[in-house]
Amino acid sequence: MPPADDQSIPSDYEIAQSVETNHIVDVVEPFGLTEADLKLVGETKAKVELEAIERVREERDANGKTILVTGMTPTPLGEGKTVTTVGLGQALNQVGKEALVAVREPSLGPVFGVKGGAAGGGYSQVLPMEDINLHFTGDLHALTSAHNLIATMLDNHIKQGNELDIAVNWINWPRAIDMNDRVLRETVVGLGGEVTGVPREDGFILTAASELMAVLCLADGIDDLKERIGRIIVAYNEDGEPITADDIGATDAAAILLKDALKPNVVQTIEGTPAFVHGGPFANIAHGTNSLIADEVAAHLSEYLVTEAGFGSDLGAEKFMNIVSRFGDVEPDAVTIVASVRALKYHGQDMWPPDVDALEDEDVDAVYDGLANLDKHVRNLEQFGVPVVVAVNRFPQDTDAEIEAVIDHCEEDLGVPAAESTVFADGGEGGIDLAEKLIDAAESESSFEPLYDLEAPIDEKIETVATEIYGADGVEFHSDARADIERLTDLGFDDVPICISKTFHSLSDDASQKGVPEDWTLEINEIYPSAGAGFLVVLTADVLTLPGLPSEPAAANMELRSDGSISGLF
Amino acid sequence: MPPADDQSIPSDYEIAQSVETNHIVDVVEPFGLTEADLKLVGETKAKVELEAIERVREERDANGKTILVTGMTPTPLGEGKTVTTVGLGQALNQVGKEALVAVREPSLGPVFGVKGGAAGGGYSQVLPMEDINLHFTGDLHALTSAHNLIATMLDNHIKQGNELDIAVNWINWPRAIDMNDRVLRETVVGLGGEVTGVPREDGFILTAASELMAVLCLADGIDDLKERIGRIIVAYNEDGEPITADDIGATDAAAILLKDALKPNVVQTIEGTPAFVHGGPFANIAHGTNSLIADEVAAHLSEYLVTEAGFGSDLGAEKFMNIVSRFGDVEPDAVTIVASVRALKYHGQDMWPPDVDALEDEDVDAVYDGLANLDKHVRNLEQFGVPVVVAVNRFPQDTDAEIEAVIDHCEEDLGVPAAESTVFADGGEGGIDLAEKLIDAAESESSFEPLYDLEAPIDEKIETVATEIYGADGVEFHSDARADIERLTDLGFDDVPICISKTFHSLSDDASQKGVPEDWTLEINEIYPSAGAGFLVVLTADVLTLPGLPSEPAAANMELRSDGSISGLF
Repeated sequence: MPPADDQSIPSDYEIAQSVETNHIVDVVEPFGLTEADLKLVGETKAKVELEAIERVREERDANGKTILVTGMTPTPLGEGKTVTTVGLGQALNQVGKEALVAVREPSLGPVFGVKGGAAGGGYSQVLPMEDINLHFTGDLHALTSAHNLIATMLDNHIKQGNELDIAVNWINWPRAIDMNDRVLRETVVGLGGEVTGVPREDGFILTAASELMAVLCLADGIDDLKERIGRIIVAYNEDGEPITADDIGATDAAAILLKDALKPNVVQTIEGTPAFVHGGPFANIAHGTNSLIADEVAAHLSEYLVTEAGFGSDLGAEKFMNIVSRFGDVEPDAVTIVASVRALKYHGQDMWPPDVDALEDEDVDAVYDGLANLDKHVRNLEQFGVPVVVAVNRFPQDTDAEIEAVIDHCEEDLGVPAAESTVFADGGEGGIDLAEKLIDAAESESSFEPLYDLEAPIDEKIETVATEIYGADGVEFHSDARADIERLTDLGFDDVPICISKTFHSLSDDASQKGVPEDWTLEINEIYPSAGAGFLVVLTADVLTLPGLPSEPAAANMELRSDGSISGLF
Repeated sequence: MPPADDQSIPSDYEIAQSVETNHIVDVVEPFGLTEADLKLVGETKAKVELEAIERVREERDANGKTILVTGMTPTPLGEGKTVTTVGLGQALNQVGKEALVAVREPSLGPVFGVKGGAAGGGYSQVLPMEDINLHFTGDLHALTSAHNLIATMLDNHIKQGNELDIAVNWINWPRAIDMNDRVLRETVVGLGGEVTGVPREDGFILTAASELMAVLCLADGIDDLKERIGRIIVAYNEDGEPITADDIGATDAAAILLKDALKPNVVQTIEGTPAFVHGGPFANIAHGTNSLIADEVAAHLSEYLVTEAGFGSDLGAEKFMNIVSRFGDVEPDAVTIVASVRALKYHGQDMWPPDVDALEDEDVDAVYDGLANLDKHVRNLEQFGVPVVVAVNRFPQDTDAEIEAVIDHCEEDLGVPAAESTVFADGGEGGIDLAEKLIDAAESESSFEPLYDLEAPIDEKIETVATEIYGADGVEFHSDARADIERLTDLGFDDVPICISKTFHSLSDDASQKGVPEDWTLEINEIYPSAGAGFLVVLTADVLTLPGLPSEPAAANMELRSDGSISGLF
């Protein structure tokens, strides 16, 4: 998300167009990948073949260091996590380290809603940004197809006699679309008489919200992918027993559709640092980080991997630590929390909705007022035994006094290193101080450990995250949730990580609560298994899994020129 | 469609895997395209850049000869039109002509229904056949996205105040999916209360049935693509005036999604002949041939272009002559009609449903009984002033006596050249006789002309096709159709080609009528404009635009092996 209010910096698209990109083969070669390891898609995009990943895993048993980028509680202004991730990767290369970047893959559909790409920005973006924000290498389309194939086979099974005795009102597999098409949220399908099958209520979710996205981002190869798809629970039968994707014969066909999507995409940053852009699950009903397979191959190929977690320490980062790190070999050696002066002022304000314009003026006291939110994220991450460095992402209107206030507070009051970052405007050079502090942190002794044991009871695991990370006083389980816990424990789905779905706008479950909410209880409405992904989803509220377009969608202002160039996309 | 009953020939997939493919750059280089003209997708697939197409159009003003491949009335057995198209292209190269092939692009969704790929077969197929039948270069996905973006913007317009006064019950733009998902045929969308907008009846069509597919296959560049998208009628307002894609602001965003799909895909046949595989519109509600842009570039690049039209002379070929040739520079210099001994026996039978097993035994008299159907197709095509050659595609169980009976009949009774083709089993070598006869035909004088004037009244154009091509005694317009004609004439949509939607199973509008049905009247139910494509669609019956899966879908028997290879797809 670019700081759109700065007139002196050209637009992301203009910057992107002004840069000479290298052939992707030349970009990855210094890291040990050759042309034969890649499936090229044009000259600047490629997928890494699974054989190459196998080879890299075997040849290089020592991992590089992994730096996880997360943020304080997000504000509508954007704090610049992806920009910082990309810029930090560039900075590490500038200070002589081999470093790779891994970020999430944007969805196509949302691009047409509210303006704004998702590939970093300024002089810290991944290229070719217009491709990455459009069809890219087709991963999202493959996921949509595979998701809908499973849905089609499910309804076809019911129509063809329903041998498995599937309960029509207990189907857990909606359809998927990669478009902000709000009217598909709740539908009735199967109308038109006997020939089309059984009418029933159904709905669509955004492809990124599909359990298949989570599956793709956790699978370590084809066999694991198939196993995960096969065990996805798509419905229950009339006796309440789970019906899986495998039961309806959909495993292999869905895996065939995903066999190329499983291969991580590699592109380059604006400074030629290789960037893996692969997978983008929701950070509430799923774990919110790019694919494990991309992280693993990148960590094997370089001294440093910089990877991003969605939202703050309470969402993407918590899930990276408690979920992702258990499924793969990706323990973080250091974490950086992206903070901004604007976000700190925002979290220190007492009013709701906040007065965004007022955040532009210098106001060091307002910055101090918001530090509690940052502090909580720092303490949250320290609980995992990992060194933390705060990155203050500087925006044009920030003053030196404001920036210094944050850095001094971190170093003096919290005892954690902090550095200003100007990677948006300056590229890697703007992140050298941050890079050096993170190198020190990552080289230091650390003792990473997830926060809870998998063997703990479901409610205990939820309570641990709620109280230790969110800062809740406790947890209240509604009766449905209690029943879910009992049923899931009976089914043997209790010894897996938990994935709590909570608003990202607040550390609490109330989006309007800024700073560090106190005196509150986390309410749990429902718990269901993402058996393919391998975790339990814990719902604290309704989740919007299919957004709509605004009254003036970005799509209406886009232009395709005769020469194929575009405007209005970013 | 392979003759699956022959045990001596390995499967299409086995044959495909046994062949060493060349880098696509090497495949197209002899025809004047360089690496810079291509956007590579892996080593064996590429898109031809629009700049290269512009250059080819300018540099080479003389077209090569165009040979159109069509067939007699299709039977459930398959006659082998794509196989013949591919084999003929290979044969032309074998006899020293520069020749290219252009065929339609298969849809992804149907692959999971009834077994059978759509990329030729045996030793006359296009490679890599598994990619072509799966995501290929993403064109179908781009079409699905663009189609659904328009639908999303339409419903969003209504929700955000409906400034254009769109009549909710007169929306002509369903949603699209590339999956045989029957329960989506008829749906209700927009449920869930005020926040999602206005509930209404809606439905999904297969992506290949979208008007956008027809648009993509007729557009000659970006400007034309945008113009065509912009004028698509997506709904009517409360006053009955058309609302276009442009009115709802969707033109450019949809075009942006299609900008790469517009570029023709080039791959290779099993003998290394370049093959354009691009676009695949329905041959009933649309024109049923691969993209005009692929045909044009291919005809400019080579001495011979072999291109295929869907179904028989009454559908794809009629539409190629009366619609496609008017929009672009692609007049056929010769036509070949693919016939088979089995199909002739089938059309000579009196019973319904036919006894397919009986078609295996030698029975020359049964062949004679079916010749009338072939004769009608020959005479149909001769009406366009184009030389016709009959291709008898030999299947393993056919006897010499049967094949000779067909060839003798064509040459002696009809006065048209005919040749046996064994390209499925023998590759290009099996089509040399056919190739030579087609060269003679294409080099001869011809005087191609469409069958009707665009200025003729709508009903007259329909009557011309019905009586001259289908063999109907006349046309009956139901009252709705009469009203449509009046309305469309008032709107100024009358001076365009007509695209009659009729069953492909029969020359008549009754799928059960084999041979050459007599004493029948074509009934017209509805006429609507495909304003973007630029023709009127004339419905003779309900069209199934979203098929379902069978009781045992092919998907259930597919396998993805650990090494990424697949089985059960073909």
